Amino acid sequence: MVHDINRQVLLKSRPADIPEAENFEIVNAPVPELGDNEVLVRNIYLSVEPAMRGWVSEVANYSETVPLGTVMRAFTVGCVAASRHSDYRPGEFVTGMFGWQDYASIEAKVIQRKVTETDLPISTSLGVLGLNGITAYFGLLEIGQPKAGGTVVVSTAAGAVGSCVGQIAKIKGCRTVGITGGPEKVRICRDEFGYDTAIDYKVGGLDVALAAACPEGVDVYYDNTAGMISDEVLKHLNLGARVVICGTASIANWEPILKGPRVERHLLVKRARIQGFLVLDYAERYADALQELTPWVRQGLIRYREDILEGIEQAPGSIAGLCRGENFGKRLIRIASEE
Amino acid sequence: MVHDINRQVLLKSRPADIPEAENFEIVNAPVPELGDNEVLVRNIYLSVEPAMRGWVSEVANYSETVPLGTVMRAFTVGCVAASRHSDYRPGEFVTGMFGWQDYASIEAKVIQRKVTETDLPISTSLGVLGLNGITAYFGLLEIGQPKAGGTVVVSTAAGAVGSCVGQIAKIKGCRTVGITGGPEKVRICRDEFGYDTAIDYKVGGLDVALAAACPEGVDVYYDNTAGMISDEVLKHLNLGARVVICGTASIANWEPILKGPRVERHLLVKRARIQGFLVLDYAERYADALQELTPWVRQGLIRYREDILEGIEQAPGSIAGLCRGENFGKRLIRIASEE
Repeated sequence: MVHDINRQVLLKSRPADIPEAENFEIVNAPVPELGDNEVLVRNIYLSVEPAMRGWVSEVANYSETVPLGTVMRAFTVGCVAASRHSDYRPGEFVTGMFGWQDYASIEAKVIQRKVTETDLPISTSLGVLGLNGITAYFGLLEIGQPKAGGTVVVSTAAGAVGSCVGQIAKIKGCRTVGITGGPEKVRICRDEFGYDTAIDYKVGGLDVALAAACPEGVDVYYDNTAGMISDEVLKHLNLGARVVICGTASIANWEPILKGPRVERHLLVKRARIQGFLVLDYAERYADALQELTPWVRQGLIRYREDILEGIEQAPGSIAGLCRGENFGKRLIRIASEE
Repeated sequence: MVHDINRQVLLKSRPADIPEAENFEIVNAPVPELGDNEVLVRNIYLSVEPAMRGWVSEVANYSETVPLGTVMRAFTVGCVAASRHSDYRPGEFVTGMFGWQDYASIEAKVIQRKVTETDLPISTSLGVLGLNGITAYFGLLEIGQPKAGGTVVVSTAAGAVGSCVGQIAKIKGCRTVGITGGPEKVRICRDEFGYDTAIDYKVGGLDVALAAACPEGVDVYYDNTAGMISDEVLKHLNLGARVVICGTASIANWEPILKGPRVERHLLVKRARIQGFLVLDYAERYADALQELTPWVRQGLIRYREDILEGIEQAPGSIAGLCRGENFGKRLIRIASEE
């Protein structure tokens, strides 16, 4: 059932740092026409993620800046409402970068994948079985190269990516230490995500807490924060340690560039490495990751949390809340039912 | 011919930063007795190297601090003067960490290697065919992973390690850019070491010079300096670039830790990595490196310079001079003839 209005969330102005509700506006547009070989997708869940801060920034980044006045870029999962492509039939679920809007008429090739694991909620296709899980998978295994018995430290440990990193590390036989903010997230890290220990960075004394949590040092540090949390973790690196830079959540603005402790000598003495990681570089191998991740989720080896906001009206303010850490688990916006 | 006096250079006091002549003293000791299975080596060339600054420092490092009142740790090449081990005969040349002294009586197992390429000067066994060449070889090829057509930037480009890095990169089909200090070293980089271009960092405008020298960006940065030179090079990294931290020559003192531009965001956006490298980790593969390096030196594909000081009296002041960049090529001290 196709409605006659397509609600869209447009980027109205560029934020100085964190995107706030006022940087967006919701407009009513006509439902797009379906061209040859195109598929009309009715979005059900819109994704909200930390990377959006970069997408709306003017500063050079790994992806193009979202132009003002256009639909906010976002991963979504939706239902095929109409199709003029033989590979897709109405009623099938698909994921892709269809934007913060009700409807997208798209070329079939921009569909990321068909969601076939229909025994699991389709929302998982945007989180633990979407880019978050895939990011955790390749970042940890390819860049972090964990070894059984080693210690893996994860920042934003209760987040959509971090929680998955911790659990994959556990599956691989590592000791896992999560860094997160607040007592409730510490509890979730330990009780739900199986971290051997979790540290609340907000109470201070991170250096001492890390020393206690990592008596044999740190072999892999999966970093989603940058900044002072990372500075402390780096002090505990073992010989040959690997640091995965997956995100820089603690730092809102990189212009001008911030100063921090110089890493050269420490990396030399420890023969350690720091490496930036972007999941998009692994696009051709997403299916391989999902093939491992899906049974892990089914078997309960990887647990996940979702923070689902109701209604497209929630979208404009949803990034700021994420940056403030108010969510527990993968943040999504439900804008339609699956029926 | 064994003399009856063993001149030794002892570490007398710890320098605040750069080791100066006054931190050492020369004493006369008896020539050591030869124990069972031991070899008496008469040193001919003593090595002087930047790492010595770390060896005499109290700050934690990748090797033990040289204790006060003991012979300064150093690589040397010498001649077997007497032997009670069946593998070594008088007159053979051997290298090892035999210290700044005339004679060392050592267990055979601490000998690094027998110098058999007698068509080349034995001094090369401490430089281009010693740890400098081997450092360049593994650091560039294993950590830097250069690819034909890529751009390799080298700091301390005219130095014992740097000059070798540039030439190996050239052998591997890369475009090579050397950073060095002063017009004479720039000339040597271009004319002797075959860099495609060389930059004098002392004249300023390094950022502009790098942009001109690396129109297609930097794929590998082999860093011997750390500090502000590196900060500039990092700005020019390509996607997936590799930075090899081999030394930190520009920074005399890391206590307290210095501040510099934070690298996290840049590494993330560029999916680049920075990795510390220590040649000692490759000890079991030195022979493999020499097997490639030796013919390259014989064929003139790798040229080298030596800065040979005459007499053990030169040893105490030799490190400071090296840190000031006054040498052209591998610095050695000749304390005996090869006859």
